[in-house]
Amino acid sequence: VTAPEHPQGSAEDRLIARYFAPLARHPGALALSDDAAAFTPPPGHDLIVTKDAVVAGVHFFASDPADAVARKALRVNLSDLAAKGAQPAGFLLALGLPEVDPDWLAGFARGLGEDAETYRCPLLGGDTVRTTGPLFVSITAFGTVPHGAMVRRKGARPGDLVMVTGTIGDAALGLRLRQDKLAGLGLAEHARAHLAGRYLLPEPRNALADALRQFATAAMDLSDGLTGDLAKLCRVSDVSAEVDIPRVPLSAAAKAAVGADEGLLPTILAGGDDYELLFALPPERLAEMQRLAGAAGVAITPIGRFIAGGPPPLFRDSTGRPLDLARAGFSHF
Amino acid sequence: VTAPEHPQGSAEDRLIARYFAPLARHPGALALSDDAAAFTPPPGHDLIVTKDAVVAGVHFFASDPADAVARKALRVNLSDLAAKGAQPAGFLLALGLPEVDPDWLAGFARGLGEDAETYRCPLLGGDTVRTTGPLFVSITAFGTVPHGAMVRRKGARPGDLVMVTGTIGDAALGLRLRQDKLAGLGLAEHARAHLAGRYLLPEPRNALADALRQFATAAMDLSDGLTGDLAKLCRVSDVSAEVDIPRVPLSAAAKAAVGADEGLLPTILAGGDDYELLFALPPERLAEMQRLAGAAGVAITPIGRFIAGGPPPLFRDSTGRPLDLARAGFSHF
Repeated sequence: VTAPEHPQGSAEDRLIARYFAPLARHPGALALSDDAAAFTPPPGHDLIVTKDAVVAGVHFFASDPADAVARKALRVNLSDLAAKGAQPAGFLLALGLPEVDPDWLAGFARGLGEDAETYRCPLLGGDTVRTTGPLFVSITAFGTVPHGAMVRRKGARPGDLVMVTGTIGDAALGLRLRQDKLAGLGLAEHARAHLAGRYLLPEPRNALADALRQFATAAMDLSDGLTGDLAKLCRVSDVSAEVDIPRVPLSAAAKAAVGADEGLLPTILAGGDDYELLFALPPERLAEMQRLAGAAGVAITPIGRFIAGGPPPLFRDSTGRPLDLARAGFSHF
Repeated sequence: VTAPEHPQGSAEDRLIARYFAPLARHPGALALSDDAAAFTPPPGHDLIVTKDAVVAGVHFFASDPADAVARKALRVNLSDLAAKGAQPAGFLLALGLPEVDPDWLAGFARGLGEDAETYRCPLLGGDTVRTTGPLFVSITAFGTVPHGAMVRRKGARPGDLVMVTGTIGDAALGLRLRQDKLAGLGLAEHARAHLAGRYLLPEPRNALADALRQFATAAMDLSDGLTGDLAKLCRVSDVSAEVDIPRVPLSAAAKAAVGADEGLLPTILAGGDDYELLFALPPERLAEMQRLAGAAGVAITPIGRFIAGGPPPLFRDSTGRPLDLARAGFSHF
């Protein structure tokens, strides 16, 4: 048993003052000099709150650059806000540190501060604690939507299109690349860099939030893989879905990987960490949604239809045969 | 390097559905079936947010009962809300688990659920992740205050009384007891149980929140020790303070301990984890405040005065001599 200790208040205070107070520009953060922060959504708006934690060795590599760790920890939360149609408004940070490494902390604070600026999501407060285990980052992010306008997982209707942003499977392939599990595929260096980068640093689709709120009947972000996450959305919406696998958008790198080893297809469809958005869209809204998505710089692709019934959704190959992902070794179902 | 893994979405979902969904009774929690929760303070109110994390082996013993771990993790956050004069409104939970132990999780969920009821602070959402290190609990708590009424650390004025709730130093002595550092003092069993209990399970003073908001000019909770926390309050309020050590309220158990070894006095004054409240009160408000505190069932005690100047505050013994806590081996100053 490791003995608990009295937290060294003053050492923690110095660390906070040096690395994090400069990021706390929201007036409600009180420059991180108080027990709590005050944050109130504008009149007529609801507050949307989400909390995702990441742990070194589980959700990222301990050797990842400190600024990328910070960005990923914030972005996985921003992605949840995007999926709910919410605009980012601020966040709280709990940081569990196995040691105080000034260089690492400086890099972490720099990455966090840059993303807080980019996504207009200022630091509001938090807590820094010591841990005897791997570093962890637990972020709570706040967003706002007009009252009652949050996009939910529940709401997809039979006939709605199954839509995704960006490309699918890159992060799962990037993780396997980092784990040396994609040797022998002959992937070009730029393809390898693309896949590794997509695992290291998700790009949350916050630019699409307003459009989702206007047109999507249901949405979620893809953190646990397309097959599992679509099953979740179907379950809570009380529908099923049919997806045409050939329509699932793949990056050039993912196409090269699956071209070299078609056994990677289940990894692409069921692997996690893409942080793209999955949403349901009435087909008559497709043209308007394409226009708004284009203006937001986010690619969107219809990959199938929601149908009456219940999960699991069907994934059909080019011959129309349902792919048996359970037999392919994935435990999501 | 431990290899990151794909989170097992469905295993996590089952765990959440079994242990935590029953606690998510707030409508905005959406029964934990969505990416985020919706929470909006009532009209005319500000949202107060706070985030404190606890780690096994650092902030509690890994062998502590699971329900006590849950209660402590929530209560250290409720204590921050109390100090700000806020009424608890809900919380988000991030739980880092080294293993999935059904008995432990059942106890944890039971303790969390009972405290959520007691303090009227429902679970709104969260995240459960695997860690290769010690268990951690990162909670974000939400409270509400009438617009602009949050009690801040800043605001104490020269002439205000230095006030504390409850008794001071019990938790620090309780920790030392658990660490076998109080052997040979001849403490009675009930005294040992009292001290150990105060370390294991803080009692946040939320019952005093409304009274604080009416009369206190500044407040914070005592997590890092009276000397260090009073110095922080003085710093941000731009004042100093004089405390009469004989007026600092001690439990019978703490009196017995310091009677047996007066070298424990710095531990009592500078040790952490009491989660009592420290606040500034204009002396003309003392009678009213005593009445409200009595009605709330919370003992409050004036222990000194705020004075012009800057920190560190002075702690005077019964002869009026300032105690040199730095020389007594405490690094807070």
